Amino acid sequence: MVEHVREDASDPNATEIAFAEQSRRLADLGRGFYSRGWVLGTSGNFSAVITADPLRLAITSSGVDKSELAPEHILKVDDDGKVIAGSGRPSAETLLHIAVARLRNAGAVLHTHSVWSNVLSDAYAGAGGVSISGFEMLKGLEGITTHEHSEWLPIVENSQDMPALAHAVEDSLRRHPGAHGFLLRRHGLYTWGKDLAKAKRHVEILEFLLEVHGHSQK
Amino acid sequence: MVEHVREDASDPNATEIAFAEQSRRLADLGRGFYSRGWVLGTSGNFSAVITADPLRLAITSSGVDKSELAPEHILKVDDDGKVIAGSGRPSAETLLHIAVARLRNAGAVLHTHSVWSNVLSDAYAGAGGVSISGFEMLKGLEGITTHEHSEWLPIVENSQDMPALAHAVEDSLRRHPGAHGFLLRRHGLYTWGKDLAKAKRHVEILEFLLEVHGHSQK
Amino acid sequence: MVEHVREDASDPNATEIAFAEQSRRLADLGRGFYSRGWVLGTSGNFSAVITADPLRLAITSSGVDKSELAPEHILKVDDDGKVIAGSGRPSAETLLHIAVARLRNAGAVLHTHSVWSNVLSDAYAGAGGVSISGFEMLKGLEGITTHEHSEWLPIVENSQDMPALAHAVEDSLRRHPGAHGFLLRRHGLYTWGKDLAKAKRHVEILEFLLEVHGHSQK
Amino acid sequence: MVEHVREDASDPNATEIAFAEQSRRLADLGRGFYSRGWVLGTSGNFSAVITADPLRLAITSSGVDKSELAPEHILKVDDDGKVIAGSGRPSAETLLHIAVARLRNAGAVLHTHSVWSNVLSDAYAGAGGVSISGFEMLKGLEGITTHEHSEWLPIVENSQDMPALAHAVEDSLRRHPGAHGFLLRRHGLYTWGKDLAKAKRHVEILEFLLEVHGHSQK
Repeated sequence: MVEHVREDASDPNATEIAFAEQSRRLADLGRGFYSRGWVLGTSGNFSAVITADPLRLAITSSGVDKSELAPEHILKVDDDGKVIAGSGRPSAETLLHIAVARLRNAGAVLHTHSVWSNVLSDAYAGAGGVSISGFEMLKGLEGITTHEHSEWLPIVENSQDMPALAHAVEDSLRRHPGAHGFLLRRHGLYTWGKDLAKAKRHVEILEFLLEVHGHSQK
Repeated sequence: MVEHVREDASDPNATEIAFAEQSRRLADLGRGFYSRGWVLGTSGNFSAVITADPLRLAITSSGVDKSELAPEHILKVDDDGKVIAGSGRPSAETLLHIAVARLRNAGAVLHTHSVWSNVLSDAYAGAGGVSISGFEMLKGLEGITTHEHSEWLPIVENSQDMPALAHAVEDSLRRHPGAHGFLLRRHGLYTWGKDLAKAKRHVEILEFLLEVHGHSQK
Repeated sequence: MVEHVREDASDPNATEIAFAEQSRRLADLGRGFYSRGWVLGTSGNFSAVITADPLRLAITSSGVDKSELAPEHILKVDDDGKVIAGSGRPSAETLLHIAVARLRNAGAVLHTHSVWSNVLSDAYAGAGGVSISGFEMLKGLEGITTHEHSEWLPIVENSQDMPALAHAVEDSLRRHPGAHGFLLRRHGLYTWGKDLAKAKRHVEILEFLLEVHGHSQK
Repeated sequence: MVEHVREDASDPNATEIAFAEQSRRLADLGRGFYSRGWVLGTSGNFSAVITADPLRLAITSSGVDKSELAPEHILKVDDDGKVIAGSGRPSAETLLHIAVARLRNAGAVLHTHSVWSNVLSDAYAGAGGVSISGFEMLKGLEGITTHEHSEWLPIVENSQDMPALAHAVEDSLRRHPGAHGFLLRRHGLYTWGKDLAKAKRHVEILEFLLEVHGHSQK
C-alpha cells in the first residue's frame, strides 16, 4: 500500500483503475483485520475515496464475512450512499463514512469492532471520551510529532437512526477538530487517513493504545 | 460460504453433492476456529443439516484434532445419531446437535470450547445465564435489528448422560425461545443458524461478546 | 497425526522410517506451538519414542528457534541421553524426557513455556500444585471419561542440576500417579501421551485450562 | 537464521552479499513481529551490523508498515546515521541503534512496541526499571546459565531529542552493564544480540517475561 492511488474525476478510465485497485486493497486490509479479531461476525466496514468531487466512495457491502472479503464485495457509492457500481447492499454505515470523509477530507475511512474499543467506549461513556497521553505510538497519528500529545477519542452514543447518528458524528468531529478517531459506544472505532495506508496505520495505533489503556486500568 | 447449499431429499445425487460441499465447508470452518484457540485438544463439534425431513446431519467425527479437520472426518448421521456414511465415531454430542437442529429449525449447529465461554459459564452459573445488552455486535444475531437488545445466554449444567443433557438443552431452549445460543457450564458455547455462514457469524459474535464481558468485569 | 508410527526394534529399516516420520511430525508440532506463543525464544523441547526397549528417543536439539524447527533439528538419543544420530546438542532437558517416557510408558513427551504455565506455577508454588476440576476439557486427558474429575498438576521446583531435577520429577510422578502433566515452577509445562497426537492433545488441553484458571482468579 | 553472516570490511563484495542477506532476514523478522502485534502502525525498527569498523548498519527505513517489510525497505547507514545505500529515510531512532551497537558490541539491535512493554514501562517508571527473577526463560539471555538470575530492565524516559535520548540510553547501558535490554517509557523495548538470531531470541524472551509479569500483578 505504498503508492497513492491517483484520483482523476476527468478521466473515467483512471477512475475505473483506481476503483479496481482500491477494491483489492480494501479486501486485503479487511482480511488482515479479521485475522486480528477486529472485525468478527461480519462486523466492520471500510471505504476509500475514489473521487473527492463529486464524492465517490469504494465501500464494503453489508454483511460480508471479513475472512472472505474480496474485491467483488466492494461497491462504488455516490455522496447519497447510492450504489453506482457493484452488487450488494452498501454498508449500513455508509452515511457515516461519507460524513467522515467530507468533514476530515479523508482518502479512506475504516471502522473496526474490537474487544477493547467495546470495553473502553462503555467504561468511559460517562466521561464522553478516552484520553490517551504520552505514548510514542501517538506519533504515528497524522500531524503529531511528539509523544507529548494528549489524544482525546470522543465517545458518541450509538444509534440505529443512521442520519441522526451521522449528525451526531459530524457534531463531535466539529467540536474535536484534532481528534484522529472516535468511538461509538458499545460498537467500535472509526478512524481515517489521507489514504488507505495512513488510515490502516491509524487503526493499528488506536487499537493498540486502547488495549494498553485497558490493561493499565487493572 | 455465500451460497445456500440446496437440500433436496427427493434427489439423492443432489444430497450427495450437498454432503460433500458441507463437509468441505465444515472442515474449513473447524480449522479456522482452531486457529483462534476455540477448539483446542480435539474439542468442539460442528454440524450442518443435509436434509431436514428425514433429518440427516453432516457432523464431525469424534476426537479429531481440529487443526487437521478434513472432509474425510465428516460423517452423515440420521435422526438417531446413527452413522449412515463416512467412517469414524460420530461426535459424542450428536444428540445435542439433533436436538438443537430440530427445536430451532437450524441449518447448522456449532459448538466451541473457548476460554471465555468456560470462564463466564462458571462465573454466572448461579445466575443461570449471562446477560449481554446494548452492543452493536448483537445486531448480527438473527432477527435482531438494534443494539438495544438484551440477549440472555442460558447456562445449562454439564452432564455425561447425553440423553439427559439433550433434554435439559431442549428444556432450556423452550424456556428461552429468543436465545441465540446457550452455554454448557465449564464446557462451552452452542449456537446455530439457518445455514453454516449464519451459524459461523453467531459463533464469532457470541465469543466476541463473552470476551468483552470478561474484560469488563475486572 | 492420525496413524500410530510403528516401533520395531528388530527391524532397523522400520526404525529409520519411524525416526524420519517422527522428526517430521515433531517439527510440524513445534512450529505450531511457536505460533501460539508457547515456545518462544528457543524454549521448549519435544520428544517421541522410537523404540521402548532399548529406549531410543527422537528429541529436539538444544537452542533451536521453534519457528524454524525442521526434521534436521531432531536427534536420536539413547537412554543415557547420548546422541546416536543427527547433529547438534540434545535438549538440555533430555534426562527429563527419558524419566517421563519411562515412568509413564509414554510414546511422546512435550514441554512448553507458556505465559499461563509460568504465571500459575509461581502463584500456586506454595500449594505445591494447581487443582483443576469440573471442566469438560478434562475429558480429553487419557483415561478420563467425565468432567467430574479433579486434576492435580504438581509443581516441581526448578533446578539447573538436571539429574537432581529428573529425580524430583520422578518422585513427583510416583506420588501423583494419576497426574497427566506437571509444572516446573517459573519454567513451564510437561505432559506426555501414548503417541505424539495424544501428547499434543494433552498440551492443548492443559494450556487451555491454565489460561481459563488464570482468567478466573481475577 | 542459523549461520552467522560474515562481516568483512576488506572485501566489498562480501559486504554487499552480507547486506543483501541481512536485509532479507530483517524483513522476515519484521513481518513475524508484526504478526505477533509487536510492531503495529509502522512502529518498531530493526538493524544488523554489516561491518563493525567502520560501523555500517543495515536498518529499516522510517514509517514502513511492518506487515509488508521487504528487503527494499532496508537501508545501509554509516556511524553518523547517514544513508550510504538504499532509498528512504532511515529510522528516526538510528542514533539509538548506533549507540547500542557500539556500547554492547552487538551484531543486531531490535526495537519493538508491544502492549506489555508499554504497560510496564509506565507502571514501573517510578522505580526506574522492571526486575524479573527466577524464570527459566532468563537462561536464553546471553551469558545467563541459570534461572536464579535477577534481570533488571532499566526504564529510560522517552524524548524526541534523539541525540539527548541516545546519551540517556548510553548512560543507562553504562550504569547497567549486565542489562540485556531496556525500556523506553510509554514507548517500547530495545534489545540486541551478537547476531540477528540471538537478538530475535532476546526480543521473544523479554516480551514473554513482560507479559508474564503483567498478568502476575493482578
